[in-house]
This record gives sequence, C-alpha cells and structure tokens, in this order.
Amino acid sequence: MSLLVVGTLAYDDVETPAGRVKDALGGAATYFSYAASFFTPVRLVGVIGEDFRAEHKTLLAERGIDLSGLELAKGKSFRWSGRYTGDLNVAVTLDTQLNVLAAYRPAVPVRFRDSRYVFLANSPPALQAHVLDQVDPGAFVAMDTMNLWIDTARDDLAAILRRVDALVVNDQEARMIAGEPTLIRAGRAILKLGPKVVVVKKGEHGAFLFSERFFYALPAYPTDRVVDPTGAGDTFAGGMLGYLAHAGRVDEAHWKRAVAYGCVIASFTVEDFSLDRLRGIGRDDVERRFQELHRFTAHP
Amino acid sequence: MSLLVVGTLAYDDVETPAGRVKDALGGAATYFSYAASFFTPVRLVGVIGEDFRAEHKTLLAERGIDLSGLELAKGKSFRWSGRYTGDLNVAVTLDTQLNVLAAYRPAVPVRFRDSRYVFLANSPPALQAHVLDQVDPGAFVAMDTMNLWIDTARDDLAAILRRVDALVVNDQEARMIAGEPTLIRAGRAILKLGPKVVVVKKGEHGAFLFSERFFYALPAYPTDRVVDPTGAGDTFAGGMLGYLAHAGRVDEAHWKRAVAYGCVIASFTVEDFSLDRLRGIGRDDVERRFQELHRFTAHP
Repeated sequence: MSLLVVGTLAYDDVETPAGRVKDALGGAATYFSYAASFFTPVRLVGVIGEDFRAEHKTLLAERGIDLSGLELAKGKSFRWSGRYTGDLNVAVTLDTQLNVLAAYRPAVPVRFRDSRYVFLANSPPALQAHVLDQVDPGAFVAMDTMNLWIDTARDDLAAILRRVDALVVNDQEARMIAGEPTLIRAGRAILKLGPKVVVVKKGEHGAFLFSERFFYALPAYPTDRVVDPTGAGDTFAGGMLGYLAHAGRVDEAHWKRAVAYGCVIASFTVEDFSLDRLRGIGRDDVERRFQELHRFTAHP
Repeated sequence: MSLLVVGTLAYDDVETPAGRVKDALGGAATYFSYAASFFTPVRLVGVIGEDFRAEHKTLLAERGIDLSGLELAKGKSFRWSGRYTGDLNVAVTLDTQLNVLAAYRPAVPVRFRDSRYVFLANSPPALQAHVLDQVDPGAFVAMDTMNLWIDTARDDLAAILRRVDALVVNDQEARMIAGEPTLIRAGRAILKLGPKVVVVKKGEHGAFLFSERFFYALPAYPTDRVVDPTGAGDTFAGGMLGYLAHAGRVDEAHWKRAVAYGCVIASFTVEDFSLDRLRGIGRDDVERRFQELHRFTAHP
C-alpha cells in the first residue's frame, strides 16, 4: 500500500574512524525512502536547494520513489556535518546549516493525500502536525523525533504523539521523552502518551518493540564492518515501514518481521558511507540477512 | 556435575537512584555461587575477614554451597563502595578496601580439585592461573576479568586466556581486550586469543555468545524494576555456569539455554539490593522468566 515520507534531504560531511566523506547524499527522508524502496514504492515530500544534484534525483527516482512532492527552493540544500568516535554509537554534530529548510513548510501534493502509511521523519513537531493535517484520515502514521524537540517543544511533541500510531526513536530519545532511566520503563511510559506502538532503536544492540498487547526484543544483525552509522536509524525505519506498507498489515507478526527487516537494512547502511552500501545490494541480500538474523537469535 | 568458583566475598556500600545500602553482602563469588545454586551444588573458594557475619555463611551453606574452601583471615573482609547514576549501566567506584584480599593466595582444597566446571571470578590473572594450577586437568574453565587487569596485567591476562575454555566479560571489557570498537569484531577477535567461547554481557541489552562454530544474541529479560545493578554480571555468569554444570554438557543448544538462564537470573538480581531479590525467588520463578524471555524474543 502507499507509503508517504516527509523529511529532510541533505548533504553531509561525515568523519568516522574508518574515513571521511564530504557532500555525501544524506537526510532522514533520503535514507528512509531508499530503504523502504526495497519493499514498496515510496512517495517523498521534502525540500532541496539549487545545489541538489540531478544524479541524486535520478538515483531516488530509479528506485520507484515518487519525487513529485519534492520542492526546489532558492539557496543551498540542508547540510549536516558530524563525527563519530569511540564505540560509534553517538554522533557529535559539528555543524548544521538549515539553508532551504529554514523557511520550508511541507506541502503534501493532492495525489499523495490518500497515502495509507505515513512516516513523519524528524522535524519540529508543529511541522509534523502540519503534514498530518494534509493527509486523509485513517492512515497508519509513524514518526521520529530528536533531543532538540524533546527539550524545546515539549507541548507540540505531546500533541503530535497523541495523533500517531507509532513512535520510532533511539534509546537516548526514549529515555528523554519518558524521563525514565531504563528502556523498558521508558517504552512502556511512552505507550501512555498516545502511540499504540513504540519502537526503540538501540544501534548495535538492536531494537525493542512495545505495544499494549506484546513486547518484542531483537538484537541487531551482527555485521563486523561498521564504517559510518549515519542514516542507520532512518533506514531502520524505512525498512520497517516499507515492509509494513508492502504487507498492508500491522498485526503482531508483521510488526515483528518489520523490526527484523529494519535491523537488516540498517546493518547494510552502516557498512559504508551515505547510501553506498545499500546501492550495491538487492532484495535477495536483504532476505538472506533476515534469515540469518533469525538463525542467530533462534532458541534451541 | 561439580562446579567450583574462586573469587571475592565482600561487603558493599551501594548508592543508586532507588536508594542506598551499607554493609550489604556482595562479592563476585558470593553472587556467582548463590545464582549457580539454583541449578547445582557449588564449591566456593575465597577469603573472608573476622567481620564476616555468621548469618551470611549460613545463607550460603543453606543453598548447597560448600564453604570448606572459605579461608578466614585476620582483619576485615574485602569492601567495595560504589554509586550508579543516569542509565544505571556503569558503576562509579567510590572506594575499594582490599583488606584480607591483599595477601590472599587461593588454596583449592584437595577434595575440590576434581571439579569438572570451574569459574575464575575476577581477580589478578596471575592468581587465576595459580588457581588453575591446582585443579585437575580436563575441567571446563570459564573466567571473568576487569579493566584494571586489561590495563595493567596484559601479559598475565594473555597467558590465562590461552588456558581457559570460556571468557565472560562485559561490553566495555570486551572492547578493551580486543582493541575493537564494535562488539561483533571484539568478540570474534577474542576467540583468537584462546577461549573457545566468549560471552559478552551487555546489561539491559542482553548478551552475545561467540564461538568458532556459532553466534547467538539474546536480549535481556525486560524487567522494569531496576534497583541496583551490582552483582548482575556475576549472577549472570553463575546462572549460566550453574546450568551448564547441572546439564554436564557444553554443546550449542546448552550454551544458548545457559545464556538465557544467565539473563533471567541477572534480571532478578537487579530488582533489589544485594541478594535480596534472589533470596525471595525459587526455581519455578526462574523457569517462568526463562519461558517468557523466549516468548519475548521468538520470531513469528
């Protein structure tokens, strides 16, 4: 079924112990939509600047990503610069240049409004609400957020949380939102704020899935080649929502499989900079790791 | 089959967000042996001071823990004082008083030497080697260590690693020993240093099990009541080795189940200070969580 994502497209400068890249294609919606495109067509809404390269539009379009919601604005694209050290679990942001993002108000094209699955990638909660206002009622809506909004836009965040079906956040964000030190308490507390499902991304430790009816824990796929964690969380969400939208069902079994697909896609993402690793794999590679992950975590 | 543990008995002062205790029964061998006693009789070797309370000896003895290897030395028992803050994953050591531990050289009683399963709890690697010298050949030997020895006794540590069957360490220690940033690389690297099995304890994230023949990842049991993490790792090891010794087998299926029992026992340990939570549960409670943990992590 139709999957809409609204979020950033960016150019990143990234430095990790494995190397560095400049002007690499990035952005939450870029990563999300590329990952989801392994499973289903994607509708993308976001803003780019005049520096956005034609080859990158082509890259996305060729994956079945509908770019008719992409707005071209005067100026430069959103830019992020970060560095990973030590255990690679936490990025240090060196610089953020909003550029075209600063004045952007997402407009969902009329023909995207009937989307049955919607992912609100990280952006100010008020903007996420503005997007949701433009989508037909009844869609299954998942969202991400970040520490900045948890700190500075609490009320807006609480309001949007009451309107979504699922929240997908990392471990640090989950603790912050709930004000709870352990992830188990944090996940359960967030369920009371609105979402029927909370997915906590834990990087190399995998993910937790909380719902009122069940709990699921899955370790990460054990890749031993971590080059750049940028985009791992967004591709996790993309793999997950892409699978759910493809299946057209959000029951317990599909959610659990969706989390596993999220882990698998993220495990590829970290193996190179930008989308480089994902660009080199096919659906069969995804399926192989999905089976392997189940094998690594199966009980005797 | 017979299970021998050599390590510390201690009195701890512990402060966590949930409260504080003074003079609480602690020590790696105490925690280990109590946890293992859910599955099998345990032989304990360690040193206590004149302040070690009779009730605590009784507590252990009543669990089927053979205390004939317990040496009473002049002076005070080993003491540790620590504090947990934030996400509770890391303890800050406030004070360590070696006391009777300072001059202690473990002597394994003659009637313990035929032990088929041996756990060398954290202590200087040279002392661990000294213990191993006293045990009959052919025992299945697992060991723990800590950052202090990884930093200051590299050669001794390398020597003992070549002599043991399994290493059981936490995530930080695994990264330090291997000099690798990701746990997957770290675990695989340590396999090349001697142990046939490496178990990496990840606190609230569960555990990884590495062997040359298979890999296993298990999330932690999702308790939402974390009072004090002290002893979690030692009781994890105790539950694991206790189960293996009881089963008398160390094949893939038994290892995987042993890791799950370790996670389960540790999940009880953190729910109160010292051994307080473990003292209130029975084998049936352990079995119930074991089944639940498998349910939480089972694939659809």
